[in-house]
Amino acid sequence: MLNERLSAYSELTDKKLGELLSNESIPPILAESMAYSVFSGGKRLRPSLCMAACELCGGTMENALLPACAVELIHAYSLIHDDLPSMDNDDMRRGKPSNHIAFGEANAILAGDGLQALAFLALSDCTEAAAIHAIAQGAFEMVMGQSMDCNACGGADSLATLQDYKTGALFRAAVRAGAACAHAGLQQTNALTEFANAYGMLFQITDDILDFEGSAETLGKTAGKDAASGKTTFVTVYGLDGAKTYAQTYARQARQAISGISREASLFTELIDFTLARKA
Amino acid sequence: MLNERLSAYSELTDKKLGELLSNESIPPILAESMAYSVFSGGKRLRPSLCMAACELCGGTMENALLPACAVELIHAYSLIHDDLPSMDNDDMRRGKPSNHIAFGEANAILAGDGLQALAFLALSDCTEAAAIHAIAQGAFEMVMGQSMDCNACGGADSLATLQDYKTGALFRAAVRAGAACAHAGLQQTNALTEFANAYGMLFQITDDILDFEGSAETLGKTAGKDAASGKTTFVTVYGLDGAKTYAQTYARQARQAISGISREASLFTELIDFTLARKA
Repeated sequence: MLNERLSAYSELTDKKLGELLSNESIPPILAESMAYSVFSGGKRLRPSLCMAACELCGGTMENALLPACAVELIHAYSLIHDDLPSMDNDDMRRGKPSNHIAFGEANAILAGDGLQALAFLALSDCTEAAAIHAIAQGAFEMVMGQSMDCNACGGADSLATLQDYKTGALFRAAVRAGAACAHAGLQQTNALTEFANAYGMLFQITDDILDFEGSAETLGKTAGKDAASGKTTFVTVYGLDGAKTYAQTYARQARQAISGISREASLFTELIDFTLARKA
Repeated sequence: MLNERLSAYSELTDKKLGELLSNESIPPILAESMAYSVFSGGKRLRPSLCMAACELCGGTMENALLPACAVELIHAYSLIHDDLPSMDNDDMRRGKPSNHIAFGEANAILAGDGLQALAFLALSDCTEAAAIHAIAQGAFEMVMGQSMDCNACGGADSLATLQDYKTGALFRAAVRAGAACAHAGLQQTNALTEFANAYGMLFQITDDILDFEGSAETLGKTAGKDAASGKTTFVTVYGLDGAKTYAQTYARQARQAISGISREASLFTELIDFTLARKA
């Protein structure tokens, strides 16, 4: 069920993303640098959640196509800017040179800027005002999270807020926009929002755990990097076991939120299980 | 007439921009760095054109407030990113340290990203879909122009296209969004678009002339910089006299476009004269 739906969502999203990026008036380097990061093996998790939320609320996946693409374009831009030398200074992303290594820093900044603009340009054709609002809210909150992260505002007491903005915001945007495209009522929208809040934390914590375990296997590189950069994660604050307990807690919350919606929700529960067990 | 209306537009715009930026949930450094560039003595030309276009088409300036603020936020973000070391590497902007000098490069990138997101968040409350589309189109075209500029795609043959994207796009976005907020018909919208196309060129050419003349007075610094960076302007291609002739030509086109609209348009013609004669 899960893999089959995710494939259908990804296929539809990729087709539309390709159309959006293949406008002939886009200068070649800008088009190439944007496409480089958008088509770099992303799992299309956010668009999938957007479309799944729409279907769960009685719409079709096509109904949610524009916000699904918009949230993926925003996610892609955030990774490009996050990798820049003055930010995380990462030379590699998903096994290939990061955007600024491939195209230079100026082009990487513009690729990110262009992807954010393109996201809202695509979204401006969406007739659901609430979907546009949800995506814009998510895009802004994500920057708030990045700012907290960069300025080491993420002490233990504000860690959950930081992670919620940095990671949760785009998941929340995705499901709320998807729900809006199905004209969902308040109860369904709220339940999906609660799911996204918990799922975002689960996703970020499993990410932190994978980083830590991966680095323990190799040279303590990432864990060392997180500690050295002053970045606070669930692992640095609560230890590995504590972080794993938190992951279970958020998984439970996510399951509970989705169980409040009457229709078929097994895709969401499967996704929670998949994320809890993820290896990459 | 001109100064009085511009003051009214600026006052309304500034008040709303202040509200948008004073949301307490924004992390302090992000709020401060965004406000630093938004309130740095900008003339609010784009919001003014947005509101003036709305009034010209029978609406009120309040009708166009959200797109007016959005286009100014996008303009502000573009200047922050434009000044970055990997872009134009400008340490000063409007007589004070540029954003990355004041807040560091990472915070400057995030301030720009946040301002673009905030623009669309504000705009998502606008009920005119055509206004959202116009602003998003302008934001994307502006990045296309920056990309052409950065990659020295601006040979003499593509100079007008580059300048149209880089400078004209946000003027065009402003008047089209303003017209949309007054539910303007196609004829008025087209006339305003033609005005913005010509006015954008006039504005950019007078900018190039001022840069050149200013640098001739001092040390040939800017003219030297434009030449050294391989940047093509109307002055480098057509010489000072040629550029001044082009400015007159575009001023005439802008006047002609606006004369096609039946209502009172003296603010627009005054603005053309003001721009032709501008000293800063």
